[in-house]
Amino acid sequence: MKPGILPLLCILLLSSRLYSQDKDEQTIRKIYNEELSHGRCYGWLDTLCRGGHRFSGSQGAANAVEWGKAAFEKAGFERVFLQECMVPHWVRGPKESAWIIPSKGKPFFAPVCALGGSIGTGKGPITAEIIEVHSLEEVAKLGRKNIEGKIVFYARPMDPTKINTFEAYGGAVDQRGGGAVMASRYGAVGVIIRSMNLTEDDLPHTGGTHYDDSVKKIPAAALSTNAATLLDKMLKDDPKIKCKLEMHCEWLPDAKSYNVVGEIKGSEHPEEIIVVGGHLDSWDLAQGAHDDGAGCVESMDAVRLFLALHIRPKRTLRAVLFMNEENGMRGGLKYEELAKQNGEHTIAAIESDEGGFVPRGFSIGKDTSVFLKVLPWKKYFEPYHAAEFVKGGGGTDISPLEKDNIPVMSLTPDNQRYFDFHHTPADKFEAINKRELEMGAATLGAMLYLLSEHGL
Amino acid sequence: MKPGILPLLCILLLSSRLYSQDKDEQTIRKIYNEELSHGRCYGWLDTLCRGGHRFSGSQGAANAVEWGKAAFEKAGFERVFLQECMVPHWVRGPKESAWIIPSKGKPFFAPVCALGGSIGTGKGPITAEIIEVHSLEEVAKLGRKNIEGKIVFYARPMDPTKINTFEAYGGAVDQRGGGAVMASRYGAVGVIIRSMNLTEDDLPHTGGTHYDDSVKKIPAAALSTNAATLLDKMLKDDPKIKCKLEMHCEWLPDAKSYNVVGEIKGSEHPEEIIVVGGHLDSWDLAQGAHDDGAGCVESMDAVRLFLALHIRPKRTLRAVLFMNEENGMRGGLKYEELAKQNGEHTIAAIESDEGGFVPRGFSIGKDTSVFLKVLPWKKYFEPYHAAEFVKGGGGTDISPLEKDNIPVMSLTPDNQRYFDFHHTPADKFEAINKRELEMGAATLGAMLYLLSEHGL
Repeated sequence: MKPGILPLLCILLLSSRLYSQDKDEQTIRKIYNEELSHGRCYGWLDTLCRGGHRFSGSQGAANAVEWGKAAFEKAGFERVFLQECMVPHWVRGPKESAWIIPSKGKPFFAPVCALGGSIGTGKGPITAEIIEVHSLEEVAKLGRKNIEGKIVFYARPMDPTKINTFEAYGGAVDQRGGGAVMASRYGAVGVIIRSMNLTEDDLPHTGGTHYDDSVKKIPAAALSTNAATLLDKMLKDDPKIKCKLEMHCEWLPDAKSYNVVGEIKGSEHPEEIIVVGGHLDSWDLAQGAHDDGAGCVESMDAVRLFLALHIRPKRTLRAVLFMNEENGMRGGLKYEELAKQNGEHTIAAIESDEGGFVPRGFSIGKDTSVFLKVLPWKKYFEPYHAAEFVKGGGGTDISPLEKDNIPVMSLTPDNQRYFDFHHTPADKFEAINKRELEMGAATLGAMLYLLSEHGL
Repeated sequence: MKPGILPLLCILLLSSRLYSQDKDEQTIRKIYNEELSHGRCYGWLDTLCRGGHRFSGSQGAANAVEWGKAAFEKAGFERVFLQECMVPHWVRGPKESAWIIPSKGKPFFAPVCALGGSIGTGKGPITAEIIEVHSLEEVAKLGRKNIEGKIVFYARPMDPTKINTFEAYGGAVDQRGGGAVMASRYGAVGVIIRSMNLTEDDLPHTGGTHYDDSVKKIPAAALSTNAATLLDKMLKDDPKIKCKLEMHCEWLPDAKSYNVVGEIKGSEHPEEIIVVGGHLDSWDLAQGAHDDGAGCVESMDAVRLFLALHIRPKRTLRAVLFMNEENGMRGGLKYEELAKQNGEHTIAAIESDEGGFVPRGFSIGKDTSVFLKVLPWKKYFEPYHAAEFVKGGGGTDISPLEKDNIPVMSLTPDNQRYFDFHHTPADKFEAINKRELEMGAATLGAMLYLLSEHGL
């Protein structure tokens, strides 16, 4: 090698590297510009939410599947298809109510809703004395002599000092998920739980509860936080308060439903697939604007941006609207089953299921090596205030892919407002801010672009 | 020095340093915990907003001054006082309307509001042909022959691709501020501007316009973005559209008003003052929840946290509710005048006037040395996602302090939603999220703590 060649080569390599960096920066800038000027996600979400709830097995969910397929096709996705799956079908029934009956004074109505998956109270209401607890362990400690024949009231609030509200949720939701089984083990006839909500208001929040074949199923319901706070206060003076609870929810046979998939092919490595998605189903009380219409339309728009900007991705991009995240994950399981069966090579999967709020960054991979590969891209997200990269997981729908060692990540929006809406009628289109949603879509688009250009 | 003393000394110094870091971290954790568990700012804001608008010179502003003083006193602030200042007093008058009159077809009503400070249209309306422009320069270019006798329609939208929405505002607001003077210079009889809003909706946004003694004053109003977009489209086919504009706003004599100040004394350096504030006045169309009731109650609560937690600050903390930021800055000017007159030693001033949204960080000092002193504290804000420290400025109210070389900074909340509300009836209490507001108050509290402990 002649003297002088090495430095020259270094300069060439460096400038090509600089050029490539520059190109990525510029393309990402175009992605944000396009989304913030001509984003489609907000309009899509409006249409989606106007159809009412999309609970698994419902007509709304079936309509949403049709809508999603048509929207992908109309937007020019190259391959659009459905993945059939059977989903659980639970219905709330025509009536649910709770009366709080003090030992003296007038009974009053408390805002209540059945927890998803709960049995009903039979033909009429059940009436029993309330016993308040703050944990599952407390039920065991109080034992059968204190619990039998009663309605257990789980009153532990979400911890407001947790900065990450999902952590506050994680610290309280065992009462909703496992409260019925634990109470039934000691002879309770029903449970009412304080809603998973950091705000004091009158909306009961539904959400899944589960049973265990080893104990009798008992009805489980959520009280609004205002009602729960009031009940907690009243019980201090009057420990003999009763609750008259009526719910007519029931299980129907599994129903046929679908994941909806829209794809654009990669130019250089079409066999390498990058998945981005949210879940199409919602709870039956909500329009599911934040949970998770937002994640669906952001994912759709993140891929559509490539069509709009005539960017041919090097790898295949696939937006997936998963069915049945809320009460079964059947869509997520089916997706993984088919991906494996078809021998697909998925290089990464991203989920957006934490609300349509302004993005903060990404939670990336459980595998340190994946995290370290993605970490250098952090700088591309700094101008958009979405550069908080933390090691973590993906979302529920893509979690089955983890057992096939597929790297997962999730978009992490700011979550301060999330539990104001979660699983209630307040989770409607009007709770969404257009620019915040668009920032989410663009941020997903930028990550898809980097994954598609550089692989993982 | 004996051998072995130096390493020992290093260890001692290091551990004292570690201890101090640890103490700061722990105290800041306590500040956030207290605010998120027992914050007062949200309740204060509710009361403040229920009083209606607080435009300078209005009864609402006078009531707010009384309320602020009483709230400081009730919360246990050690020294509470008012600073008298004279403020401009402009009133909108009983009626304002705009009719768009196509050359063929029916006239229609367009949502409009007078810009703050505008003159009225006289006893009745003015009617004139509309000429659309996109910049002040375009008016000069079109010249008197095209402008004379017409109503100039400034139609340039805010740029949606700016990630910082204040930058988008800065790029369009010259039309609102200087549009009337420029149009009048070329003989226009009035101006209508597209509202400073990134969203397409029906709310006209008010805000200050100014006049120049060298040209005739002409009426200036803002159209809603929906109306502006429609008018822009219509003018392409029908360039002879007229506007019938009626406004009865007027100037009254200056009114007496006040800044409201609440203070707690420093234990070690009571003469060193740290100011934190927002502005108490709002526009007359708004409750001013985000602009800037939020900044007021966050500032009050940030200082109150020291009382609640029994933390005696080393330096004096002073929460200031400034009067008349929106149309005169008289409170800010008065504050500086009195601080100078009293020979006060203000070591730093922080403003919160960018809405009650979730905090992102701080904009700090115009002076690099100040920025570099504060920068090491960034780490304390990372657990709270409020660690975006950028070199920049303070707010309007504390800007007069800059000429006395007082370091200024401002809290920077996420601003994606800000212009949905700005200077309109949508800026009401319901537009505030409790946790987001509390996060702002706690973040200010943490910065006050660090400034108070370590000086600047």
